[in-house]
Amino acid sequence: MARVVQKYGGTSVGSVERIQSVAERIKKGVNAGNEMVVVVSAMGKSTDQLVKMAKEISDTPHKREMDMLLSTGEQVTISLLTMALQEKGMKAISYTGWQAGIETDLQHGNAQITHINQENIERHLLVGTVVIVAGFQGISSEKEITTLGRGGSDTTAVALAASLHADSCEIYTDVEGVFTTDPRFVKKARKLHSISYDEMLEMAQLGAGVLHPRAVEFAKNYNVPLMVASSMTETEGTLIEEEVTMEKGLVVRGIAFENDVTKVTVSGLPNELNTLAKLFSTLSKHGINVDIIIQNQTDSEHVTISFTVTQATLKETLSTLEKAQEELQYEHIQYENGLAKVSIVGSGMVSNPGVAAKMFNILADEKIEIKMVSTSEIKVSTVLDEDDMVMAVEALHEAFQLSEEALETVI
Amino acid sequence: MARVVQKYGGTSVGSVERIQSVAERIKKGVNAGNEMVVVVSAMGKSTDQLVKMAKEISDTPHKREMDMLLSTGEQVTISLLTMALQEKGMKAISYTGWQAGIETDLQHGNAQITHINQENIERHLLVGTVVIVAGFQGISSEKEITTLGRGGSDTTAVALAASLHADSCEIYTDVEGVFTTDPRFVKKARKLHSISYDEMLEMAQLGAGVLHPRAVEFAKNYNVPLMVASSMTETEGTLIEEEVTMEKGLVVRGIAFENDVTKVTVSGLPNELNTLAKLFSTLSKHGINVDIIIQNQTDSEHVTISFTVTQATLKETLSTLEKAQEELQYEHIQYENGLAKVSIVGSGMVSNPGVAAKMFNILADEKIEIKMVSTSEIKVSTVLDEDDMVMAVEALHEAFQLSEEALETVI
Repeated sequence: MARVVQKYGGTSVGSVERIQSVAERIKKGVNAGNEMVVVVSAMGKSTDQLVKMAKEISDTPHKREMDMLLSTGEQVTISLLTMALQEKGMKAISYTGWQAGIETDLQHGNAQITHINQENIERHLLVGTVVIVAGFQGISSEKEITTLGRGGSDTTAVALAASLHADSCEIYTDVEGVFTTDPRFVKKARKLHSISYDEMLEMAQLGAGVLHPRAVEFAKNYNVPLMVASSMTETEGTLIEEEVTMEKGLVVRGIAFENDVTKVTVSGLPNELNTLAKLFSTLSKHGINVDIIIQNQTDSEHVTISFTVTQATLKETLSTLEKAQEELQYEHIQYENGLAKVSIVGSGMVSNPGVAAKMFNILADEKIEIKMVSTSEIKVSTVLDEDDMVMAVEALHEAFQLSEEALETVI
Repeated sequence: MARVVQKYGGTSVGSVERIQSVAERIKKGVNAGNEMVVVVSAMGKSTDQLVKMAKEISDTPHKREMDMLLSTGEQVTISLLTMALQEKGMKAISYTGWQAGIETDLQHGNAQITHINQENIERHLLVGTVVIVAGFQGISSEKEITTLGRGGSDTTAVALAASLHADSCEIYTDVEGVFTTDPRFVKKARKLHSISYDEMLEMAQLGAGVLHPRAVEFAKNYNVPLMVASSMTETEGTLIEEEVTMEKGLVVRGIAFENDVTKVTVSGLPNELNTLAKLFSTLSKHGINVDIIIQNQTDSEHVTISFTVTQATLKETLSTLEKAQEELQYEHIQYENGLAKVSIVGSGMVSNPGVAAKMFNILADEKIEIKMVSTSEIKVSTVLDEDDMVMAVEALHEAFQLSEEALETVI
């Protein structure tokens, strides 16, 4: 008997039929003798519909009320899924975040889980009841409903797996696992058998979109092995766990990419110690997420700072900067739309200084102009023209031999 | 400064636009210096949509899970309405049933309010915050979400008004108040200025459909005056309160009616002390609501019992009776479809024994056959052919002079 936490995303529970097929999958787990806790998201596009109504009422709805609103989505799914299990003759019970004892801090819309009071769940597991938990939500010390932010259901699942000492945590989604790159763009993309937490983190943050980065971090911190697999098929997924030595030799594990990137350049900023801090605090206060940051010193008195934001936040970025001109004392703002970010990821990279150079050579051979570069221990990111994105990914995938299965298992 | 509890039904909050106009109405109350608590139902048909999904999954979904599912409907409304108030610059906060301290017994789907812990609400009223409460729901001693059954939002409003010692409780709906009879059928129907709790109870149970009977009972027990008015207009509604002596003289206050009535006759039942009890316990155990009951003794050994049910429950009524034939030992079952119930209601009736006779005469003059009769202290109900219903109501409305305003205020 194993204790299993499963998580099903919005697409996996997007209709009554899908919910019934998830119930069938859970039944298999129970029949195999497992103790089961299942975390679910809101059905399909239901969260988007709720957000749309809120936006019709207010451009800036209060976050507490957004949490009250959005937390209903998962509550609908847990009750329907529980009914589906009961209809199959199984013992099941649904729990909202607060009933499941998921305690968070007070930060509405982006709350952090502080503690899980798992007594209620343990009591039901003891008598063979499947516990269906609403993902994405919790309760603060003030007894207010909070949400963990988009993708928070993954975090709920991992946190429950950690606190319940589960034997496995299975994340079911609409993709079959983690691929060397996005298979919708690169035909030769290959599903990985396993990947390390750190590599997954870089892949997720770069837009691979399989798992929420916070969930991966949480899993890493509590050493919870994650299995990512498709809820639609029976094929094996990808295991995310502590690094496997055997695979160290594989330098590049995957290629992540995203479009709709905009580069913003602020020039003529005073060359002072707190210039960077002031600029990015101003943006952060307005909730603007900045990705790549590059600083150039123009002369002894002035610096130029470039950074990337998503195209969607460009307008707010510009208006925020304009309002802060007096405080920041810059001379110009420029921006460039229609860019993309392409990154190579792999934990072996740190001991292979030539990898970045190889990447630049591959792109140069394709006559692709690199507009920005940013590196970390396990990734190299480049910003380039959106039109060059797919060509760049394909060339890198080929040159780093990612479609060749042998490399993953042998080296 | 007054303390006001308002309640808005599903149609009144059926769209974003409606919610915004409700917010405008609340704002007027706040600007008038009132402390405001507002109870709302789920938006429009959203409860029906949730029920539909549940029924696709199970014919008999567990009641606990139905409560988890349905309670999301009001939670959506409270958060959207609160956002709308905040958008107008007002202080407002939304509360689910459990957050508002609405404690109930354990009966899922039809819970009774046992106590209201109003501390949270009082705290907000003190600082001028409008408190928006989800109607229809509460929390049991086991920390389970419960619902009060259909129309329970009215009960929530009245219970809050009682426990908060509110100066008034205003129920806003899609009708303008309580009418002498249904204005959709009888053109001369007139809105009443006021009506007693008991009269309202008889009107409500007979299908006037303005207020949930439980809410009226609750209001009567705690002596909470209720104002029923339209959320769409500014016209004055109907006040429901303790009987006003001045109006005692008005014998018949209103005419209630409903169609889709079926008469079921069970004949050849053993003439025993517990025959009635056995028959109606059997039906009640299957959730079948019976309305009028008439018993005839056929001979010393046998009795015949007739009762009415709604057409929708006929099938289940018959199958329940057939399964119980051995226990009940009846000889025949007969039923008659396509009937209607027409009742006259008025608290002055008890001291006017001629009222029933007058009713029968009026119907006889119209050549309408009366198939069943049932009386209480303040109403006389008749069952007749559905095709005669409107004619009967019109004739009674005319003969009892209900369209004449003068009668209500002068006599």
